[in-house]
Amino acid sequence: MRVLTASDLEQVLDFPSVITVVEDAYREKATGDGTIWPMIYHEFISDQADMDIRSGYLKSQGVYGMKLLSWFAGNDAKQLPELNGTVNLYDDQTGLPKGIVNAAALTGYRTGAAGAVASKALANPDATNLLLVGSGSQAAFQVMAELTVLPKLRQITIVNVVSPENAEALAQSLVETLTNQFLPAIDSNSEEHQRLAKQLAALKVSASDDLKAATRQADVIVTATPSTKPMIKADWVKPGTHINTIGADMAGKQEVDEQLFSSAKFYVDDRTQSASVGEAQTAVKAGIVTEEQLPEIGELLAKTTENQWDPQTVTLFDSTGIALQDIAAANLALTNAAKLNLGQTINL
Amino acid sequence: MRVLTASDLEQVLDFPSVITVVEDAYREKATGDGTIWPMIYHEFISDQADMDIRSGYLKSQGVYGMKLLSWFAGNDAKQLPELNGTVNLYDDQTGLPKGIVNAAALTGYRTGAAGAVASKALANPDATNLLLVGSGSQAAFQVMAELTVLPKLRQITIVNVVSPENAEALAQSLVETLTNQFLPAIDSNSEEHQRLAKQLAALKVSASDDLKAATRQADVIVTATPSTKPMIKADWVKPGTHINTIGADMAGKQEVDEQLFSSAKFYVDDRTQSASVGEAQTAVKAGIVTEEQLPEIGELLAKTTENQWDPQTVTLFDSTGIALQDIAAANLALTNAAKLNLGQTINL
Repeated sequence: MRVLTASDLEQVLDFPSVITVVEDAYREKATGDGTIWPMIYHEFISDQADMDIRSGYLKSQGVYGMKLLSWFAGNDAKQLPELNGTVNLYDDQTGLPKGIVNAAALTGYRTGAAGAVASKALANPDATNLLLVGSGSQAAFQVMAELTVLPKLRQITIVNVVSPENAEALAQSLVETLTNQFLPAIDSNSEEHQRLAKQLAALKVSASDDLKAATRQADVIVTATPSTKPMIKADWVKPGTHINTIGADMAGKQEVDEQLFSSAKFYVDDRTQSASVGEAQTAVKAGIVTEEQLPEIGELLAKTTENQWDPQTVTLFDSTGIALQDIAAANLALTNAAKLNLGQTINL
Repeated sequence: MRVLTASDLEQVLDFPSVITVVEDAYREKATGDGTIWPMIYHEFISDQADMDIRSGYLKSQGVYGMKLLSWFAGNDAKQLPELNGTVNLYDDQTGLPKGIVNAAALTGYRTGAAGAVASKALANPDATNLLLVGSGSQAAFQVMAELTVLPKLRQITIVNVVSPENAEALAQSLVETLTNQFLPAIDSNSEEHQRLAKQLAALKVSASDDLKAATRQADVIVTATPSTKPMIKADWVKPGTHINTIGADMAGKQEVDEQLFSSAKFYVDDRTQSASVGEAQTAVKAGIVTEEQLPEIGELLAKTTENQWDPQTVTLFDSTGIALQDIAAANLALTNAAKLNLGQTINL
């Protein structure tokens, strides 16, 4: 059994590959080759500490497993990371444990990939302008994943409606962070590496405190915040814009106007989760849409891999996070680590 | 984070301590200090391969976590263990992973302890005669746990209704196995060690193929089989006998006559699990008892720790297995291992 830390993951996970396996995982959920089991959620202290367990079976990869991820807001004061957890994988032919992976780091990769899979399918492939709402732990992962699938992105605008200074700080450091954190894992002789290095070198990153103006200019919008109130109004969004709502993953969370579920074309990762804890929950409660009317992105991907962008239509993808993303990304990491003989091995 | 293998567990777990923490865990479930979350179950191949995830929170110990345990019948032919899995524990103040423990080995201890907790509460404290039905992986754990709480046990009779030769083989080796596997973990200067060593030296172990006669003679009966048909009839059981049904943990399993749920005084570990997957499932289906009428052993233990034996009454405990047992036993193992600096430590 192999154990991979956060820094091991930086060595073995490259976004082009993670995006591919997450896309496959969504598709397999739709075709029935991937199964997710009920999510378990527990709150230790209201709005301060919680954990969830996501589990499932990814048949094509011959693995099943689970992720337990905890969030303890008080850890910051203790100089500990707020997010902690483990992903455990098991072999579907023997039940033997295959590996354990740092769940917090893996979650960054698989969630970045989630947005990118949707952007690849739904956004303007020539998009130049990305708006990132939020500047927390997901920010770098989201941007790097979008750059991977949208080669013409040249401008990143960052808005943090709660702490504008955090957006400013991120804007200053982002290109360097992305270059150091994510480029080394991509084969330096590959076209992909050279393309991304050039794209990063040419990238303009700025912070803004005018969310309305930034929304109007964006070709692609990614919201990755813990917001409980809509930040973006439906009528701010210009036709042809694609939105990934990443933040909402529990009851009470909301990032964008629920009217987008009547005006935009939308997809979710899992209709049950999306209707109960995702961005769609407010629209479902308001009667704008029913759970049954939420198409899953995997259903689209199972039908076609052609880009669906229509310049007249706003599209929205609601990502709540499913175990198959974690399992697919963890399995990729463990497979790559085995080739490099990286990580600690333990014998249970 | 500490990792404990099966052989590490033999060094750090002694049955007197495991029985104490499992008894506490049952009690905490009843008082609300312990919480179990919904069990997840998946069958890969009908009657050949399955897995379950049990999870929960043991507040008194400051830990939460989960066990994933898989059973692959085909492993035997591959010279691999049939049962494999992991228990992961996390700290309830920070969410940091605390340790990972071999789940198959731990399950032996915590399931042995489950039966012993019930025998301590319900069986004749002067019981001399134990009938063990089944001679599989649970057998040694069950007998050692019963010896720990019933100091006057002198005769063990083993019946295997499917493979009598397995019962015979186990009878030959049992005392040596118990002495080698379980005595070393108990402080050799303690009274408990000396008492158990004497009891083991004096123990008579035999196999029988007459289950009816063996049942009539038994003071305590432990059934630990994968049976799907009742093996013991209600009218074979003499007054004052205590029965632990350990085997039934999924739909379709049954070890004893469901009429015992009308004639005996019974307890379960978790009424929901017992009614759906435990020994009580057949009695519930037959209308002999309802889920609501299944008292939990923890409710009794929260009221009194006095032995409840009545020479006129047959008692029965239906053990299905709850996460709090695993969490309590794993936490004990990790705490003891930390004192001895035993096991591998990894940094996620």
